[in-house]
Amino acid sequence: MDGNFVIRGDIFFTPEKNKCEMHPDSYLVVKDSRIVCVEKNLSKKYSSLEKHDCSGKLVIPALSDLHVHASQFAFRGLWMDEELLEWLNSHTFPEEEKFADISYARKAYEIFTRQLVRSPSAHACIFATIHKDSTLLLCRMLEEAGLPCYVGKVNMDRNSTPGLSEKTEDSIRETEEYINEVLSSFSLVKPVVTPRFIPSCSDELCRALGELAVKYDLPVQSHLSENLSEVDWVKELCPDSTSYAASYKERGLWGRTKTVMAHCVHSLSREEELLKDENLFIAHCPDSNTNLVSGIMPARYFLDNGYNIGLGSDIAGGVSISLFDAITDAVRVSKLYHRHVDERFAPLTFKEAFFIASKLGGSFFSKTGSFESGYDADILVLDDSSLETPLEGLTVAERVERYVYLNPKGAPEHKICQGKWLF
Amino acid sequence: MDGNFVIRGDIFFTPEKNKCEMHPDSYLVVKDSRIVCVEKNLSKKYSSLEKHDCSGKLVIPALSDLHVHASQFAFRGLWMDEELLEWLNSHTFPEEEKFADISYARKAYEIFTRQLVRSPSAHACIFATIHKDSTLLLCRMLEEAGLPCYVGKVNMDRNSTPGLSEKTEDSIRETEEYINEVLSSFSLVKPVVTPRFIPSCSDELCRALGELAVKYDLPVQSHLSENLSEVDWVKELCPDSTSYAASYKERGLWGRTKTVMAHCVHSLSREEELLKDENLFIAHCPDSNTNLVSGIMPARYFLDNGYNIGLGSDIAGGVSISLFDAITDAVRVSKLYHRHVDERFAPLTFKEAFFIASKLGGSFFSKTGSFESGYDADILVLDDSSLETPLEGLTVAERVERYVYLNPKGAPEHKICQGKWLF
Repeated sequence: MDGNFVIRGDIFFTPEKNKCEMHPDSYLVVKDSRIVCVEKNLSKKYSSLEKHDCSGKLVIPALSDLHVHASQFAFRGLWMDEELLEWLNSHTFPEEEKFADISYARKAYEIFTRQLVRSPSAHACIFATIHKDSTLLLCRMLEEAGLPCYVGKVNMDRNSTPGLSEKTEDSIRETEEYINEVLSSFSLVKPVVTPRFIPSCSDELCRALGELAVKYDLPVQSHLSENLSEVDWVKELCPDSTSYAASYKERGLWGRTKTVMAHCVHSLSREEELLKDENLFIAHCPDSNTNLVSGIMPARYFLDNGYNIGLGSDIAGGVSISLFDAITDAVRVSKLYHRHVDERFAPLTFKEAFFIASKLGGSFFSKTGSFESGYDADILVLDDSSLETPLEGLTVAERVERYVYLNPKGAPEHKICQGKWLF
Repeated sequence: MDGNFVIRGDIFFTPEKNKCEMHPDSYLVVKDSRIVCVEKNLSKKYSSLEKHDCSGKLVIPALSDLHVHASQFAFRGLWMDEELLEWLNSHTFPEEEKFADISYARKAYEIFTRQLVRSPSAHACIFATIHKDSTLLLCRMLEEAGLPCYVGKVNMDRNSTPGLSEKTEDSIRETEEYINEVLSSFSLVKPVVTPRFIPSCSDELCRALGELAVKYDLPVQSHLSENLSEVDWVKELCPDSTSYAASYKERGLWGRTKTVMAHCVHSLSREEELLKDENLFIAHCPDSNTNLVSGIMPARYFLDNGYNIGLGSDIAGGVSISLFDAITDAVRVSKLYHRHVDERFAPLTFKEAFFIASKLGGSFFSKTGSFESGYDADILVLDDSSLETPLEGLTVAERVERYVYLNPKGAPEHKICQGKWLF
C-alpha cells in the first residue's frame, strides 16, 4: 500500500557531508509516507506492513534537481560549440518560441516528463517558457506523473528575440494568473517565481515579481554569475549595483522567500556574502558550466562554509537529465579546480557530492534525500547486477559509487516519491 | 558478403580537422574491405554488390582507442577519490595481481571483450598485465571477436607490489616469447611493447624492450607526464634526464618504431619538442586525467601544431569504454582549459574532437577513421530514432553530435571492422 511499507535491501544514505551510512541486507521502514527507521532485523511491530523484498539491490534516497529547463530537453546534446550568450540567442530563444504552440509543447513536455520520471530525481525546480498555457500543461503532466516539482512560467520583457518577449504588464498579470491556477489545480506541483535573469527582466518587472513571491509566499528561481560575458552585461545594465547578486536584492528578488540561484560560477570574491543566507540556495550545474565555457563553480568553498548548495542538471546547457551524472561531474570539475585554479580547495569526494545531490540540495524542497526518521519516503531501488564485473566483496558504498559513475541509462528498478511507488 | 557491399544511409566523416562531410541518404561503397566512394546515386557498376539499406540511420567511421587497460575494466567507476600514485598502489596493482589466475582473467577479459565489441572502437591499443598466459588469452578472445588490436604484456621490474613484480631477465624473456606467440598465432591482434612507465621499469629492462621493438618492428606504448607527483618521481629516478620524455629516449624507447605515449598532461614547455616526431602519438585521455586529478592536456596546442594525437578511454582511470564519451570529454576539458588555464587556446570543436578520435588517432593503426577512397572499411551504423525529440530538420552533423553527446549505452546498430560485419 502506498505510504506504508518495508523495503529489504542494501541501504545507503549520507546524513552528513562527510558521513555515509551503509546497512547491508536491512529493512527500511516507511509509515504515512515518511521514513521511520532502518533495522537490521525487522521489529515485530512492523510485521503488518507490506514487505518489498529487494534483497541484493541498492536502496538509496531519491535526488533533487535544483535547476532544469524542461523546454530545452528537445535539444540537449546539440550546438555545444558556443558560449552562453551566443547559445541563448542563436538557438535557445528561437527554440523556446515554439512553446507558444500548445501542440508542440505537448510533444516536447511528454518526452521531458517521461524522462524525468525515469531519472533519479524525485524533486525538480523547473523553468518552462514565457507561455502560460503550455507551462500549465507541463504542470498537469508532472502532477499526473507523481513528481513533486516547482514549475516556473518564465518572465522576459527585454533583450530577447521578438517571438520570446512579453510586455511588462502582461508578464506580471499572466504570472499572477499562472500562480493562482497552479495553486488551485495541483497538489504535488507548485509554482515558483521565475525571472529568467537580470538581462531579460526590466526593473519594473523584477520588483513586481518580488512582490508576487512575497504575496503568495512562493520561492524564486533565477540565474546568477554564470558566464563572464553575462556578468559584464549585468554590470552595464545595473551600473549602480555593487554586484550581480546585489542587482537582484535591490530589485526585491533576493531571499525574501526561499530563493535558488543557478550557477554562481563567478560569485566568489564578488558577492559570496549575499549568498550566505538561509533562504538562498545555489544550484551547482557542473556539466552546463563546462559545456557553455562558463567555468568551474568552487563547490568546495561553499560546502565547507555552510552555504546551501544543490545540484542541477541544467538541461540543455547540461546534457544529462540524470543527477547521477551531475554527482560525478561535480566531483570531476572540483578536481580540475583543485589542479588548475586553486589547490587550497580539495576535490569533492563522491560521498560529499552525493550528500549535496540528496539531503543538502533536497532541503530546498522538504525533508528529503536522507533515510533519517521523519524524512519523506523518496526512495530509489537500483539493480547493479547488470554492471558485469568479476570483482566480489564490494561494500554497499562502493557499489553505489560504481552504479552512479557507470550510470546505466535505464530507469531505476523502483522509484518512490513521497511514499508513492511510481514504478 | 564480408568485404564487398554498399550501405545506404546518412553518411558523416571528418577528412580534415576543420571539415566534415555530410551525405544525407547516400551510398557508401566498399570493395575488398576498403572504402571505394560515397555516392548520392549508386553507379551501375556497383549494382552487383550486396546492399544494406540503413536509410534514416547514421553511417560514420568506427573509432580508435589509443589507450585502454583491459585488466582494469573490472573496477571502473570505483575508488575515484584518489590521485594516480595512491590509486595505483592501493587498488590498481593489487587488482592486476589477480590476473596470475587464468580463470579470473578469463572471467574479466570475457566481459572486457564483450564490451569493447559493443563500443564504437574498431581498433584499440591495450595494456593487459605482466602475466603472459592471461595476456595471450585476451589476444585470443579479441582475435575471435574480430577486433584488430595491439595488445601488450606489461613489463614491471621495480617499485611495484610484491605480487606484481618481475625479475628483469624473466620480464625480457617472457616478453619475447609473448611476441613470438602472438605473431605466429593471430592475424588481427598484434603485440605491442609495453613498459608500464619509467617508475616501474629499470634501465636495463627499458633498453632490452627498446631492442625487442626494433628487432620485431613493433610499436611501443607507455605513459608520459600524466600526474605531477609522477613527473617529480621520474625526475628523482632519472636525475640525468632533461625531461620525462628524454628518459624514455635515452633508454631506447622513443620513436625508433611507432610509439604511443598516454596522457602528456604536463609535457608543454617540458618536452613538447620530443613529441613532435612522426613516429610519436599522444593518447589524450580526458576523463582519466580528470578523475585522477592529473589535469588537462592542452589538446588545442598539439592539434594546431601538427602533432599526432588520438583519444583513449583509459579504463579504469577513465570510466567509459565508449570513445563517444572521450570525444565529448575532450571538448569539455578543452573548454575548461580555455577558461581557467590559458584563454589563448580555443576550445576544441565537436568536429575537431571527432577527427581526433577517428582519422587522426586512427592513423596509429592504419588508414582508418575516414570514408576517403582506400581507407579500411571500419564503419558504424547508428540508430538515433530512440533519442526522442520533437525537433525536426536536423542536419546529419547535428544528429551525429546529438548521438555522441547523449551516447545511448547500447551497442551501435551495426559495426564493421576491416570489412567484416561484427553485427
